[in-house]
Amino acid sequence: MQALVPALAISLLIVPVGAAQEVQSSAGVLSATVLSEGLDHPWALAFLPDGRLLVTERSGQLLVIDDGVISGPIAGTPDVYNQGQGGLLDVALAPDFAESGKIYLTFAEKAGDAGLQRGQGTAVMVARLVLEGDAGRLEDQQVIFRMNKFTTTNRHFGSRVVVGNDGNLFVTLGERGEQDRAQDFGDLAGGVARIGPDGSVPTDNPQLDGWAPELWSKGHRNPQGATLRADGQLFTVEHGARGGDELNNPQPGANYGWPVITYGEDYSGLPIGVGTEKEGLEQPLFYWDPSISPSGLDFYDGDLLAGWQGDLLTGGLSGQVLVRLDVEGDTIVGEERLFAGQLGRVRDVKVGPDGAIYLITDEDNGRLIRVAPSGQ
Amino acid sequence: MQALVPALAISLLIVPVGAAQEVQSSAGVLSATVLSEGLDHPWALAFLPDGRLLVTERSGQLLVIDDGVISGPIAGTPDVYNQGQGGLLDVALAPDFAESGKIYLTFAEKAGDAGLQRGQGTAVMVARLVLEGDAGRLEDQQVIFRMNKFTTTNRHFGSRVVVGNDGNLFVTLGERGEQDRAQDFGDLAGGVARIGPDGSVPTDNPQLDGWAPELWSKGHRNPQGATLRADGQLFTVEHGARGGDELNNPQPGANYGWPVITYGEDYSGLPIGVGTEKEGLEQPLFYWDPSISPSGLDFYDGDLLAGWQGDLLTGGLSGQVLVRLDVEGDTIVGEERLFAGQLGRVRDVKVGPDGAIYLITDEDNGRLIRVAPSGQ
Repeated sequence: MQALVPALAISLLIVPVGAAQEVQSSAGVLSATVLSEGLDHPWALAFLPDGRLLVTERSGQLLVIDDGVISGPIAGTPDVYNQGQGGLLDVALAPDFAESGKIYLTFAEKAGDAGLQRGQGTAVMVARLVLEGDAGRLEDQQVIFRMNKFTTTNRHFGSRVVVGNDGNLFVTLGERGEQDRAQDFGDLAGGVARIGPDGSVPTDNPQLDGWAPELWSKGHRNPQGATLRADGQLFTVEHGARGGDELNNPQPGANYGWPVITYGEDYSGLPIGVGTEKEGLEQPLFYWDPSISPSGLDFYDGDLLAGWQGDLLTGGLSGQVLVRLDVEGDTIVGEERLFAGQLGRVRDVKVGPDGAIYLITDEDNGRLIRVAPSGQ
Repeated sequence: MQALVPALAISLLIVPVGAAQEVQSSAGVLSATVLSEGLDHPWALAFLPDGRLLVTERSGQLLVIDDGVISGPIAGTPDVYNQGQGGLLDVALAPDFAESGKIYLTFAEKAGDAGLQRGQGTAVMVARLVLEGDAGRLEDQQVIFRMNKFTTTNRHFGSRVVVGNDGNLFVTLGERGEQDRAQDFGDLAGGVARIGPDGSVPTDNPQLDGWAPELWSKGHRNPQGATLRADGQLFTVEHGARGGDELNNPQPGANYGWPVITYGEDYSGLPIGVGTEKEGLEQPLFYWDPSISPSGLDFYDGDLLAGWQGDLLTGGLSGQVLVRLDVEGDTIVGEERLFAGQLGRVRDVKVGPDGAIYLITDEDNGRLIRVAPSGQ
């Protein structure tokens, strides 16, 4: 018996700012241009109304990037717990941002007073802050949400925050590397929470018997991408173990099955749970095996890339790829893998107001990259 | 602008007979064991009732493999045209093989007398023959089907032959590299033909106005995989151009759109047709971009690989991969890529009576490979 002989993938990538790489795609020749580099493990992107970008760095900074030029760090960011997979994570604008300047940040925090009732270690928070002074400083920080249990692992925080069409927030939360928490319905870990803009519990949350009131859905492993379809439906991507990354369309009160059902297996090669299906547990819309470690998720709604409207874009961390999933109704009918191995670990993906796709890469020397038809 | 810098994939593969490679899969650790080597571009596999395998070689031989030991070539194979992608292609047993010994072969033939009315060059034939003498020789050759137009290209012959539940044959035919033929309904190229076991036209063929009577469906590019679901539904995989490989479930009288619609583009990078969708043209069930060049197709109906029952297996030529598509009803909900880059160009895939998966590789030193759970 000969052991597994993997193909070696050797990347010759050297990509200075301004450099572009080109690939063929179903929308013609695409060019990936590096707009900025030197970002410290950037985690999330959000467009300001004037076209500038807010970018979080996991180590705690919030930056503004204007046409590739990085300014900041913006003063007044929360104190974050920056170890392992923890740190400053997602950023999203409030619907009334133009008037209020309000933004939401998700981040890992070490147990302070809150931890006295909720355990030791860390958990995910959501803070609402006001961006002032031409995006120069943050004020009025208010933590509006805390996970209801802290733990000392440094893994599987999630998290993304998405503003629903009704102004309530969806917050995706990892199971912190403690699998069984995803099936403990009193625990927010491994769940999608839905909260009001002030952290209150919306009266139309599912609030099933025994469920924590903030819960929207459960049975998630580590959801690191989330976005809203125009009709208000939430879509998420989550990391499986070895295999079993999932795309889901979380419904209120539904259980997506981790770790009872999964298309993946333990890193040791041992099976997890009872298999891939069980009555009462939801199936993913699509899954990947082997894993690509999807992170970031956005519907393509621009005009630059013909035929891609309504399709989903996600990045791959381990997959080092930009993926387009062709959406027909509620079905995935095709997968397109772009720039495989050429861009590094893709952490977040957002469609810009110009119809181009913007990516950030999870590296010590993280980059902001714009993907558009060649010459546009 | 920096040109595209692809990642280099260097294969260290050296696989003697008896050697095995292992990968993790959703059905546990799988082992791929080389049963035979030295095959000359093997094209198709068919299991005999006693568990031995018939294997075609593109250059014209039909072989029997018994527990890895190759015998043959079987005498009495047709004279085939063996250039480019042409040669001896598919093999299938008649439903009454145990009594009659009848098999079907598809192959490329140079225009002889038939060509006088049908043009010069080559076309795909189907012959019915009788396997005699403990699979030692073929007799009673009868060509039951010829494409109705010959051409001098050496490309896109297809072809697969699948016996339907009613005993009629489905024959998949490439468009011979002449794209427009896939939309010429008087021409069998780029179509699936349905013929009786003697080559006659079944009375319940669609026979639409202007359609050649043998046609079942049209608008295919180069279908190199075909299989039947238990309910008699036909499934096919076909090669796109650059991108746009498709899985289809061809319906009678339906048009699958090549080259009017496709998810791929020309190798030059130019667009093909009008885009990806058009009224009256069918969408694929799933497509791949970039291409994997799917070849061979079978439903998994064994007992060895838990949870895979009802899923589709296909090989990748350029993709050098075994792919499992997770089928739920008529929808693909997940893709699993196995042994990527480790086995070579996979030309055909069949599930064996033992529940293992058997592959052949399209190489000068082609191999027969058995995939099963490690140790089984």
